[in-house]
Amino acid sequence: MENRGLTHFDGNGTARMVAVTAGIMGAKRTSELIPKCHILPITNCRIWFEKDPERRELHCFCTVKVTGKTGVEMKALTGVSIALLTVYDMCKALDKTMEIGKIYLCHKAGGKSGEIWNQKEGSATKQTDVLS
Amino acid sequence: MENRGLTHFDGNGTARMVAVTAGIMGAKRTSELIPKCHILPITNCRIWFEKDPERRELHCFCTVKVTGKTGVEMKALTGVSIALLTVYDMCKALDKTMEIGKIYLCHKAGGKSGEIWNQKEGSATKQTDVLS
Amino acid sequence: MENRGLTHFDGNGTARMVAVTAGIMGAKRTSELIPKCHILPITNCRIWFEKDPERRELHCFCTVKVTGKTGVEMKALTGVSIALLTVYDMCKALDKTMEIGKIYLCHKAGGKSGEIWNQKEGSATKQTDVLS
Amino acid sequence: MENRGLTHFDGNGTARMVAVTAGIMGAKRTSELIPKCHILPITNCRIWFEKDPERRELHCFCTVKVTGKTGVEMKALTGVSIALLTVYDMCKALDKTMEIGKIYLCHKAGGKSGEIWNQKEGSATKQTDVLS
Amino acid sequence: MENRGLTHFDGNGTARMVAVTAGIMGAKRTSELIPKCHILPITNCRIWFEKDPERRELHCFCTVKVTGKTGVEMKALTGVSIALLTVYDMCKALDKTMEIGKIYLCHKAGGKSGEIWNQKEGSATKQTDVLS
Amino acid sequence: MENRGLTHFDGNGTARMVAVTAGIMGAKRTSELIPKCHILPITNCRIWFEKDPERRELHCFCTVKVTGKTGVEMKALTGVSIALLTVYDMCKALDKTMEIGKIYLCHKAGGKSGEIWNQKEGSATKQTDVLS
Repeated sequence: MENRGLTHFDGNGTARMVAVTAGIMGAKRTSELIPKCHILPITNCRIWFEKDPERRELHCFCTVKVTGKTGVEMKALTGVSIALLTVYDMCKALDKTMEIGKIYLCHKAGGKSGEIWNQKEGSATKQTDVLS
Repeated sequence: MENRGLTHFDGNGTARMVAVTAGIMGAKRTSELIPKCHILPITNCRIWFEKDPERRELHCFCTVKVTGKTGVEMKALTGVSIALLTVYDMCKALDKTMEIGKIYLCHKAGGKSGEIWNQKEGSATKQTDVLS
Repeated sequence: MENRGLTHFDGNGTARMVAVTAGIMGAKRTSELIPKCHILPITNCRIWFEKDPERRELHCFCTVKVTGKTGVEMKALTGVSIALLTVYDMCKALDKTMEIGKIYLCHKAGGKSGEIWNQKEGSATKQTDVLS
Repeated sequence: MENRGLTHFDGNGTARMVAVTAGIMGAKRTSELIPKCHILPITNCRIWFEKDPERRELHCFCTVKVTGKTGVEMKALTGVSIALLTVYDMCKALDKTMEIGKIYLCHKAGGKSGEIWNQKEGSATKQTDVLS
Repeated sequence: MENRGLTHFDGNGTARMVAVTAGIMGAKRTSELIPKCHILPITNCRIWFEKDPERRELHCFCTVKVTGKTGVEMKALTGVSIALLTVYDMCKALDKTMEIGKIYLCHKAGGKSGEIWNQKEGSATKQTDVLS
Repeated sequence: MENRGLTHFDGNGTARMVAVTAGIMGAKRTSELIPKCHILPITNCRIWFEKDPERRELHCFCTVKVTGKTGVEMKALTGVSIALLTVYDMCKALDKTMEIGKIYLCHKAGGKSGEIWNQKEGSATKQTDVLS
C-alpha cells in the first residue's frame, strides 16, 4: 500500500501541530457535536502522534481530564477523530486511499464505571491507526 | 466479541435517527472543525446505517453534494465520524470495547482529481465498521 | 384551518426525533445565542411532543436541570424554540400557514425567585402550540 | 395581565438593540441550529420591533434576503425567535408570565413555491406577539 | 488625521450597543477561539466605551469575572478585540485608515499570579485605543 | 521593556503554528463573531509572522481572498486578532505587560471602494505589533 500522504505529513512538524490544535479545539466542542454529551469543563487535554513506519501508520493519542463526573471518553474520542480528520485533510492531495481507524478507548479512570483498560494496541490512552 | 452496545442500538430506530441528525449537523460544520477546510454550501447530505449482524458491525454511509469545487470528501468523512461518535456515545454504557473504524473514501466524482473508487468494503460511498 | 404539515409530521417518528435532537443541541448552545445568558452546565435536558388532533396542534415540552443557579428557563425556552423551528422546517413544504406559539414558562423550581407555575395549558413544563 | 417586563424593555432602546443584534446573529447561524437547513449566504437581514401598548404586546419583524434559492423563511423565523428569546431574557426578572408567539411567515417572494402572503396580523413580513 | 468613521460611530448609541453585545458574546466564546483556553463559566462580563475627542480615539474596557481559577484575562482581551472589530466593521465604509490597538491587561486580581496592574493609559481595566 | 514572553514564543515554531491555525479558524468564523459581517466563502487564507528583535515585536500578517464582494477586510482583521490573542495566551505566563496593536488594513483590492493602501509599517497586508 502506498503511503505518500503520511510521508509528506511526517516530513515536517507543521502538519502535526495543526492536527493537534484542531483536535484540542474539537475536544472542547464535543458537547456541541454529540447530542447527548454534557458540557464538561476540560481541565487538561493533550494530543500527540507516534509513527509506525514499518506498518506505514500514524497513531494518535489523546488524554483528557475533566472536573465533572461523566462522559470524558467522548471528549477524547472526538479529539482523536478531529485530529485524524485534519491529518487526512492535509494528506488527501497525495493519497486517496487512507483509512481512519480503529478509534477506541484505551484507558479510563475515575468514572462511575470503574477503571477500564482496552489493551488492543498496547498503549495507555486512546489510539488510532491511519493507513493500516 | 461481545456486542451489547450495538444490539441495544439496533433495537429501536431512535438512536440511529439521533446519530443521523448529529452527523448531518457535523458535516455542515466541517469547516469550523478542520482548519484548512473551505466553507462550501452543502446542497445535499444523506447519512444512513446498515447492519452486519454476522460480524456484529454497524456500517455508516454518508453522501454529500456541494456546489463548490473542492474538499467535499472532508464533509462526508466528518459526517460519518460524528455520526459514529454519537452511536458510540449512546451505546457506551453497555460496552466499553467498541471500535470506530475504518473510515475511508469510497467514491468521489466531479472534483479536479477525477473520479475515485475505493472498493474496500464493496459499497458506493463512505463506509465505516464499528465493533469489528 | 388546514393541517397538512403536521399530519405528515405525526405520520412517522423520524421527524419528531430530529426535532428533539435539534432542540437538545439548541438548549446546550443557549449561552451562544442569547447575549446575557450564562454558560451553565446542563445536567439533564428532555424534550417531548404531545399531539392534540382535535385542535390540530402539536405541543412541545422541555425540561432542563442545571447545576448553576440562574437562567435555566432560557435554556428550556431555547430548546422548545429550536425544536419547533425544526418541526416547521420539516413541514413547511406542505403548509405555509403554520404558527409557532405560545412559548412560555410552565414551571420553575429552585431558583432565587422561588417556585413558579403558569397554568396556561394545564401541563407541568414548558409548552408550545403549533398551528393553533 | 401585568406587563412590567415589556414596559421596562420599551423604556430605553438599549435592550431592543441587544435583541436586534442577537436576532441577526441567530439568523446567520440558522443552518447550525436546524438540522435540515442549508447554508445560505444572507445578503441582507433586518430586524425591528413595534409596540402595541393597548394590547401590551411587542411585535418583532425580520426580513431576510439570500442569494440561494431555498429555505430563506427558516432564517427569518430563527431571527425572530432568537430576538424574542433575548427580549424575554432581559425582562424575565420582572415578569415570569410572558409568552412568545405567534411566530409565522408573513410574506415570501422568489422561491419555487411562488409568492406567499399570510395576512394574520396585517403586516408585511414576519410578526410575533409577546405577552398577548 | 481624519476621523469620519468614529464621528459617525459616536453620533448615536446604536453602534456602540451592537459592539458591546458582540464583545460580550465573543468573550463567552473565547475557549472556542483560543486553542489553549479553558472553558470557564463567566459569572459577569461588562464592556463599555469612553470617547477621547481630542485624540479622536475611542477606548473600550471589559471586565470579566469567572468562578474558575485561570485564564480570565483571555476572555476580557477577546471581548475587547471582538467589540473593537465590530466598531471597525460599522465604521469602515467611512474610514479605511482606522487602527485597533493597544489591547492590553490593565488589572487582574485573584489568579495564582497575584494582583497585576498595568498603568499604561490610566484606567482600571482593559483599554484599547482606536484611531490614535 | 522586557520581552520574556515573545522570546519564548520565538524559540520554537510550535506556538507560532498554533497561532496560525487559530487565526485561520477565527477568520473563517468572522461572520459568527461580528454582527453585521456577511457569510463569505473564503477561498484562501494565509497568516504568517515576522520578528523584529530590535524592537522586541512580533508582526502578524493575514491575507484573505473571497469570492463574494464585500467585507473581506473584516475576515483578515479577525484572523490577525485571533492569532495575536493566541500568541498572548501562550506567552502570558511569562509576561503580563504585552500589548496587542496596531491592527489595521494594509492593502485591499477588488472591492467597490477601489484599491486601498495604508503604508504605516511598510508591508503589503495587515500588520500588527505586539509588545512595542
